Amino acid sequence: MSIIKVVYFSGSGNTKALAEAVNAGASRSAESELMEITGEMIIEGRFKNEEFLAKLDQADAIIFGSPTYMGMVSGQMKCFFDGTSQRWFQGTWNSKLAAGFTTSLGLSGDKQSTLSYMATFAFQHGMIWIGCDAPNELFQGKSMEEATNRLNSNTGVMSQVNFGDEFMPTPGDLKTGELLGERVAKFANKK
Amino acid sequence: MSIIKVVYFSGSGNTKALAEAVNAGASRSAESELMEITGEMIIEGRFKNEEFLAKLDQADAIIFGSPTYMGMVSGQMKCFFDGTSQRWFQGTWNSKLAAGFTTSLGLSGDKQSTLSYMATFAFQHGMIWIGCDAPNELFQGKSMEEATNRLNSNTGVMSQVNFGDEFMPTPGDLKTGELLGERVAKFANKK
Amino acid sequence: MSIIKVVYFSGSGNTKALAEAVNAGASRSAESELMEITGEMIIEGRFKNEEFLAKLDQADAIIFGSPTYMGMVSGQMKCFFDGTSQRWFQGTWNSKLAAGFTTSLGLSGDKQSTLSYMATFAFQHGMIWIGCDAPNELFQGKSMEEATNRLNSNTGVMSQVNFGDEFMPTPGDLKTGELLGERVAKFANKK
Amino acid sequence: MSIIKVVYFSGSGNTKALAEAVNAGASRSAESELMEITGEMIIEGRFKNEEFLAKLDQADAIIFGSPTYMGMVSGQMKCFFDGTSQRWFQGTWNSKLAAGFTTSLGLSGDKQSTLSYMATFAFQHGMIWIGCDAPNELFQGKSMEEATNRLNSNTGVMSQVNFGDEFMPTPGDLKTGELLGERVAKFANKK
Repeated sequence: MSIIKVVYFSGSGNTKALAEAVNAGASRSAESELMEITGEMIIEGRFKNEEFLAKLDQADAIIFGSPTYMGMVSGQMKCFFDGTSQRWFQGTWNSKLAAGFTTSLGLSGDKQSTLSYMATFAFQHGMIWIGCDAPNELFQGKSMEEATNRLNSNTGVMSQVNFGDEFMPTPGDLKTGELLGERVAKFANKK
Repeated sequence: MSIIKVVYFSGSGNTKALAEAVNAGASRSAESELMEITGEMIIEGRFKNEEFLAKLDQADAIIFGSPTYMGMVSGQMKCFFDGTSQRWFQGTWNSKLAAGFTTSLGLSGDKQSTLSYMATFAFQHGMIWIGCDAPNELFQGKSMEEATNRLNSNTGVMSQVNFGDEFMPTPGDLKTGELLGERVAKFANKK
Repeated sequence: MSIIKVVYFSGSGNTKALAEAVNAGASRSAESELMEITGEMIIEGRFKNEEFLAKLDQADAIIFGSPTYMGMVSGQMKCFFDGTSQRWFQGTWNSKLAAGFTTSLGLSGDKQSTLSYMATFAFQHGMIWIGCDAPNELFQGKSMEEATNRLNSNTGVMSQVNFGDEFMPTPGDLKTGELLGERVAKFANKK
Repeated sequence: MSIIKVVYFSGSGNTKALAEAVNAGASRSAESELMEITGEMIIEGRFKNEEFLAKLDQADAIIFGSPTYMGMVSGQMKCFFDGTSQRWFQGTWNSKLAAGFTTSLGLSGDKQSTLSYMATFAFQHGMIWIGCDAPNELFQGKSMEEATNRLNSNTGVMSQVNFGDEFMPTPGDLKTGELLGERVAKFANKK
């Protein structure tokens, strides 16, 4: 059974909800764990948490999640990414699998920018990137609420959430997250 | 009165409809012209039409439009872009203004990839890029049909169209195109 | 033994030379074949060669190569990419492995734009992307001629070639191509 | 006389040296000021410095500088970018000019990723992006030390620096930074 870590930052809870869906999907056939990045781990713009990083060293696959803020992963996520530089230098994560997901307020906006960069980050580590292949069920007549991959994303999972506390990723977006988790687990188990 | 050219390729008519809206917006305060790239201009993968290119040399601003096919500007548009290499070499288009728009079937998909590349292409020519600043009127309660910038795009205008012959950009998407044309004309007139 | 196809367009011969190196690397442990895209396959901006595409359907991994022209894959390569849309629609290439390489005149320029887009294209097909993990041997004191990955690329292999007929990728760039071929073959054989 | 702000984060001093060159170029015809982002401005991953932001509100043009860390602007720079969200919401920076520069250890690496994202960020604010049009003087026979734009960048200025305390951007890279500052000032004065 492969080991998967779902590493995310969440500002308002939407990315956390999507992370839980990804983790649920991955847990069906792998040993998957949610790992949340929090502001306290970042001291003057630098991520400091060696224990957190050491757990990631054990993973067969790492799935990254972040809101898209100002056209890119959030600052907290970027500080975490910078904090992996020692692993990059030593090649610790080489050949691990990787995937990603993101949330934002707009239907498209710059979410692709976030996912494409997450892949670039993974390639710096020598990781192998697995995209989202969930069908866009809007094309099959499902509703905006229920359709998987309604935003038609490929590099990773995109979710759009509305303003306000009561909003969450749609059931279709959460299902898309689950499918990504399942897909990554399938490949991780074959390694 | 500044000179604007709206240069586009359209496969099914959607990008053409959006180009017409952009041109209408630009025409309110500038001398704007629609210029369509067609398959016959491309011989064995190379764009051959010196007259077409020479007209662009006269422009103060060029606005580029293409469908997003397979995650990027269409092949025909890319062949046209490659065909501008002599202008690139000579710096003919340096400091002209530039902007862009794209259409595809998905709500997000990889349209940002297309717009971001159009900007990169413009920077190769030393052009100055003007993005889309139309408000996302979904946030103000307008409908998917009527809202400007419902896809929340920044680098250029994104339009999503459904399958089939009878579909067209929404009224809101067309209005967003008009606003881009107006914006570019405003800056071109100040040059 | 896995099946690998190295699909490329080459304008001046540099990308072809790099493609041969990639193919040589892949051939060490897989059945690898070079497949060249030529201008004659493109009719009025559309790629037409069903036989060519059908051979790719058999592959376990496809490695894409293109010059970077005007900040992106060449028009010919983009026309080929557009020509795969039927495979995209049917999911024929889902879960195949993919990788890429590019050449241009500048040391950096916009080569990352090309490689990042190739990956985006692959994700549209549901393919899994394998980057370049060759060490940057400039950091180990090797010369610009001999160092592998002297341009420090991650998403794929970057090669810089000088102007003129007599120029070719450096021995180090060719070696980097070989290493990419070897890496892809290693993963393809494990599938 | 227009007002320009050169806003940067620097880890080891290389980006600072390049920022000074950009500022020197801009100062020839505009009132330009260097503004350094430091770690102390970032509390638990959030940029907190309203006075810093208020100074930027006065600018006609803002030039952004950051190292490329792990394939993107540094975490500190991203936290600053996130900290501008109130300006984004209010459209305070709409139609200001923007430009960018970056440094890293590799000749290419993912520096384009950084510059392309900086432009995306600027488009979110409705800013107008001015790229780097400095000639690549390697093509004219100058040395790696002296040539302007030796990395052949378009979206902004790229500088490559070697390991170690004593290394700095090359004279050619610094000259490229000056030229960017001059170019932005020229456009800012015409506004």
